Amino acid sequence: MKKNGNQALLPAGLQDLLMPAAAHEAEVVRRLIDSFSSEGYDRIKPPLLEFENALLSGAGETLSDQIFRLMDPSSHRMMGVRADITPQIARIAASRLQNAPRPLRLCYGGDVLQVTGSQLRPERQFTQVGGELIGITENAADAEVILAAVTALEAVGVKDLSVDINLPTLVPAIAKEFGYDAEQALELRVALDRKDAAEVEKIAGEHATFFLKLLNAAGSAQHVIDYAKDLEFSGVAAKEFAKLINVVELVTEAAPKLTVTLDLVEHRGFEYHTGTSFIFFAKGVRGELGRGGRYDSVSVDNVTEPATGFTLFMDTVLRALPKPKVARRIFLPHGTRRDEGAALRAQGWITISGLKPVENDRAEALRLSCSHLLENDHIHELGNN
Amino acid sequence: MKKNGNQALLPAGLQDLLMPAAAHEAEVVRRLIDSFSSEGYDRIKPPLLEFENALLSGAGETLSDQIFRLMDPSSHRMMGVRADITPQIARIAASRLQNAPRPLRLCYGGDVLQVTGSQLRPERQFTQVGGELIGITENAADAEVILAAVTALEAVGVKDLSVDINLPTLVPAIAKEFGYDAEQALELRVALDRKDAAEVEKIAGEHATFFLKLLNAAGSAQHVIDYAKDLEFSGVAAKEFAKLINVVELVTEAAPKLTVTLDLVEHRGFEYHTGTSFIFFAKGVRGELGRGGRYDSVSVDNVTEPATGFTLFMDTVLRALPKPKVARRIFLPHGTRRDEGAALRAQGWITISGLKPVENDRAEALRLSCSHLLENDHIHELGNN
Repeated sequence: MKKNGNQALLPAGLQDLLMPAAAHEAEVVRRLIDSFSSEGYDRIKPPLLEFENALLSGAGETLSDQIFRLMDPSSHRMMGVRADITPQIARIAASRLQNAPRPLRLCYGGDVLQVTGSQLRPERQFTQVGGELIGITENAADAEVILAAVTALEAVGVKDLSVDINLPTLVPAIAKEFGYDAEQALELRVALDRKDAAEVEKIAGEHATFFLKLLNAAGSAQHVIDYAKDLEFSGVAAKEFAKLINVVELVTEAAPKLTVTLDLVEHRGFEYHTGTSFIFFAKGVRGELGRGGRYDSVSVDNVTEPATGFTLFMDTVLRALPKPKVARRIFLPHGTRRDEGAALRAQGWITISGLKPVENDRAEALRLSCSHLLENDHIHELGNN
Repeated sequence: MKKNGNQALLPAGLQDLLMPAAAHEAEVVRRLIDSFSSEGYDRIKPPLLEFENALLSGAGETLSDQIFRLMDPSSHRMMGVRADITPQIARIAASRLQNAPRPLRLCYGGDVLQVTGSQLRPERQFTQVGGELIGITENAADAEVILAAVTALEAVGVKDLSVDINLPTLVPAIAKEFGYDAEQALELRVALDRKDAAEVEKIAGEHATFFLKLLNAAGSAQHVIDYAKDLEFSGVAAKEFAKLINVVELVTEAAPKLTVTLDLVEHRGFEYHTGTSFIFFAKGVRGELGRGGRYDSVSVDNVTEPATGFTLFMDTVLRALPKPKVARRIFLPHGTRRDEGAALRAQGWITISGLKPVENDRAEALRLSCSHLLENDHIHELGNN
């Protein structure tokens, strides 16, 4: 197998972003965070490295296999490179921001590293951008984080956005209600998640009809809500479902054009979630733009607070956007005064200064990918050959 | 010794940036990079981790002790977390961008990790922002990188900026001219760098007077240039010094108000530099804002190109800036329609939505650090208690 230069030089799953991709990513991150900030989500920046136990507390527990570990030569304690920023936010909320008024709105943007990529997603370094709303249980909070993400994604130009809302606590609540033991409940959850009707029927026994119906409770939000009335949830399941319906109402009321779908049996990736959860998609774009939901924010000191939040994955978000516009670049022949360049830059030009005399400034400008040339104080547009 | 919560939770030298510091840092990084970009420096983003040998090639050689090492489970090769971004830029310039036209202008902004902090600078995670100009030897290139950094620092609001220009190749050139062996030359360099006149006199022997004069060649650029005429450099030293004078002329011509100083014996931190080097300071601000200079850009495959560039240290840059302005925050009582909030955000407000009904909206707004309250479609400014 032939390797190109880059594959040979970098470890698998790590890559260089070149021009214009790196600038585009930074610009989109900035605009997403500007949008969250305008809704009161204050930006914070935890370090790339922490003590291992902090990274693995609460939501981080599932990432134990994904953390690069390092010995700290100064404390002789184990550290890890973060594989997810959410556990860091929980630590900060419970420590330095423990006295900040609730609800606490925080946002972040940064890179994380994971030990292994997946077949679907070979990358080992990701840029995460997200927001967390901590210390509040109201359904309005669940709606706010969905809407904050939707607003930001639409602001940067994502088209045909949809949100798939899930309730990973529903199946466990029903299983408990029906008296299944933990093992049965887990098997059932996995079979439902796989949409494996035969297996569901086998495990569910006398309640097979109910769970087969539940399996079909996926599709447009209104359809699923109507359909689920037949299922007559009771107890905790009914309460959870009523909350979900309220969140959907709040979201669709504020964003009537947004495509909202529901899937009542989905739970993959929501293992630590405690209520309404969601995934963002854009039509025609492979992969998730982001995901989030309700969870218990658990710090390393075991301080627990109700919370909800979302994380956007920049690689997918960038795939959902059109290519950035090519900037106008003007070549300034050798000897152009620096203040002439500054005046052009103030007008939005990218200037490329000639650092030595050349025979043909026009040819030099084209060689350096300039679209324009400054000649005798005039701006000339260059042909594209 | 009593530790505060944060010290106990994070390894030494690593810290959380909270609000408003994290947002301020991101904003200043963006404006610095916008400034470099407008001069044609294209942003690129190398990964946080690389194979160890790539991080240690060329300029990275001196950082061997500072790199956190990790085993790559997929290739079983040693990787390192970057302690400096410059060696990564050299790798990219020599590989994926080997066919891009020269001079190649690249810029970057990102975090680096170092194994140990110093007494003066205990931090182990830094944010570096910089630019590199690769594949050109002209003095105009040396002047451009100094001016690009100065322009960007002034654009973000750094006052009373000065640049101290050095020539770390001068003393070795003179030592060679005078026939000193490598050991003597090194001892002399160290003594001069320490400004240790007695030691200089001892090592320099018959040339003591010359080197004691050189020791005093520090101060405002014009003063040093005049003073150095007495020293009558010859051979390589004379050529190097003539280049330095030309760079100073180009810089002062383009930026006549900039404070430019020279120090002809400084070499600390310039071990791998091959010509004109420089350090930025701001009056009254502890530490360097940044530094840079001419070097050989050496890739892991030993491709070598002449280059010059600079790195700015965000911790010092932020210390040189006034505190960011506090944004206007308006509280939207529970039940405010989302489009009302959107209209205010479009006007530049930060909106804080009430997520449940409260008895006293005004008290709630103050509790959440809002400066204003939306009440019956009117914006009320709140008192400061």
